[in-house]
Amino acid sequence: MKTKALLFMVLCLCCMGSVQAQQDGRIPAKGFALDAPDGKFRTYEFTRHALGDNDILIETLYAGICHSDIHTVHADWGMPVYPLVPGHEIAGRVVAVGKDVTKFKVGDLAGVGCLVNSCRHCDECETGDEQNCTGRVLTYASKDYHHGNELTQGGYSDNIVISEDFAIRIPDGADLKRVAPLLCAGITTYSPIDFSRVKSGDKTAVAGFGGLGHLAVKYMVRRGAEVTVFDVTDDKRQTALDMGAVRYVNINRPEEMEGLEKQFDFLISTVPVGYDMSSYLKMVRCGGEMAVVGLPSFKEMPSIDANTLIHIEHCKLYGSLIGGIRKTQEMLDYSVSNGIYPDVELIEADCAAIDEAYRNVQQGKVQFRYVIDMSTMK
Amino acid sequence: MKTKALLFMVLCLCCMGSVQAQQDGRIPAKGFALDAPDGKFRTYEFTRHALGDNDILIETLYAGICHSDIHTVHADWGMPVYPLVPGHEIAGRVVAVGKDVTKFKVGDLAGVGCLVNSCRHCDECETGDEQNCTGRVLTYASKDYHHGNELTQGGYSDNIVISEDFAIRIPDGADLKRVAPLLCAGITTYSPIDFSRVKSGDKTAVAGFGGLGHLAVKYMVRRGAEVTVFDVTDDKRQTALDMGAVRYVNINRPEEMEGLEKQFDFLISTVPVGYDMSSYLKMVRCGGEMAVVGLPSFKEMPSIDANTLIHIEHCKLYGSLIGGIRKTQEMLDYSVSNGIYPDVELIEADCAAIDEAYRNVQQGKVQFRYVIDMSTMK
Repeated sequence: MKTKALLFMVLCLCCMGSVQAQQDGRIPAKGFALDAPDGKFRTYEFTRHALGDNDILIETLYAGICHSDIHTVHADWGMPVYPLVPGHEIAGRVVAVGKDVTKFKVGDLAGVGCLVNSCRHCDECETGDEQNCTGRVLTYASKDYHHGNELTQGGYSDNIVISEDFAIRIPDGADLKRVAPLLCAGITTYSPIDFSRVKSGDKTAVAGFGGLGHLAVKYMVRRGAEVTVFDVTDDKRQTALDMGAVRYVNINRPEEMEGLEKQFDFLISTVPVGYDMSSYLKMVRCGGEMAVVGLPSFKEMPSIDANTLIHIEHCKLYGSLIGGIRKTQEMLDYSVSNGIYPDVELIEADCAAIDEAYRNVQQGKVQFRYVIDMSTMK
Repeated sequence: MKTKALLFMVLCLCCMGSVQAQQDGRIPAKGFALDAPDGKFRTYEFTRHALGDNDILIETLYAGICHSDIHTVHADWGMPVYPLVPGHEIAGRVVAVGKDVTKFKVGDLAGVGCLVNSCRHCDECETGDEQNCTGRVLTYASKDYHHGNELTQGGYSDNIVISEDFAIRIPDGADLKRVAPLLCAGITTYSPIDFSRVKSGDKTAVAGFGGLGHLAVKYMVRRGAEVTVFDVTDDKRQTALDMGAVRYVNINRPEEMEGLEKQFDFLISTVPVGYDMSSYLKMVRCGGEMAVVGLPSFKEMPSIDANTLIHIEHCKLYGSLIGGIRKTQEMLDYSVSNGIYPDVELIEADCAAIDEAYRNVQQGKVQFRYVIDMSTMK
């Protein structure tokens, strides 16, 4: 038994590229962490669980900065455990595989989204909706009960170990630097657009034209829908029209909001701050649907009451949470084959650069998505 | 012109049965009114607007007591103007018709629901959704701008004057004493059940087994759906099963609530008091729909936030408000031809009897629906 374990370890060491496992099999990692809600990023060395038979080790090449990262590290959704390495938009290269892995081989490109595991046997897992499994393990700030309750750490780090079942194959020819944000922002918008069967000619709308919103525009334009974009400034008006939107509405200009009641077959709200859900639901036609995917901080979480629902008659409201692994793979294959990528701004893998990116996102100064180029990590 | 007016008045006087118009054409009425949110009913004499060319005068035979009446008179939905005669579930006989009326003749049976008028020209009115017209005039406690802004008074009274366009034909052979509650409770449940296309074999649920809820059960059983009923006591368990429900859940028995997550294709909430909407939405399957029709007081209005919606993924929530005139006629024709009626308890047209009925409804002591037998009015 001891010989077998030793042999396995040697095998691992051989095929892990530049990564060298510890004696106990755990894998050293280096990332960017915060120590408090109001902290700044610092480099942080930690270890990941040993490579299991079904696991792969991914060397991170790119990591997207999602608004959820910011909400989480700032304790907007409850107090997390620190130090905390965020990041659930990960694109990288497989540098080691467990002995039973079949989906990947060393050298393949692989992605990781918001999930790294789930219970594997409930109805949700059976139907491929692992995001709804009560035993799901999130990519960071989550207790991984499959691995001794260690706290998961995210993608602003040089590697990640994950079951092959929760890693996404990145198709050949993908524009890798723009892939990472698809693993969260992409699936989060693709899933409800697909669920609501948005089709050619549909009158649709996107509330919030940021990381999620601009991908929603691209998916719906690709499906032939007419897209109206709502945001709070004029800054990105031309960009929205260039992206194929037929109309851009600055909601702070009352005259632009006129005539929009009951206009849309489908509306997706990606707004990550407090807002009035009913003002958008009113713009959905009778029988139309509004999907809510943007998740503001608990302090300013929007809600809608029974009276308002009753008086905005027959407009269907639902929420949508990322997507399962199968659906995420479908989204990535679709996105790459249709050339749908986020507009990204690459930043260096450097504490000051990430701090600045966070500030810019919070101040609305980011165009769409920052992606950390992890190859620049010192 | 004067002769013409006089002639018209004489004609009116001739064909108004026992009702005698005043010299100015206004029609005397006698009803039951409250003077304050915490008041008791008293008899109240008032007048209704003169019979217009398109109006009919209905002698009230039966008036249902709806939970909305109680909410309104008790100022649960804002302070109304008093004296206030409630009642928007009216069944009666036509005793006079204006000269251009074509839909009714004297002697016909006619019903009135929650609406007595609307703007007549907006998109909502054009499509038969007068309930959503911003210029709708409610049957009571509403300013009737078509008639000099007089305050409308409801059906706990011996007559009502209404445009023929807003009166509902009561089919021959209807069980008249049980028709009135269909005009509000019936259409309020029929409309979303029809909108969501509940069909044979669907797994459905009704939250709140009162005036609205028991009609929802009957409509869905008639369509061949499996119906589960939720209420807060065991009192009506057997009645629900006798009505065709396959399951009855007393939500105060935790063991009965088990295993119900994601079970229903369609769920209708008729609950008229504060409750947790998410507890029901969680019981709807992915892609299923929950219709909210019960409207609690503003003080305990239930709401749902974006975070909850997102985590109860892909379950569609919408509100439904009574129904338009065409849909109400369709509902009544359907109900009568399928023998679907509310279970009613007739009470005398007497202040003390109505006061007692209100107390019983508030204390959950009513079985399903009280109906005032207006023929007993002294």
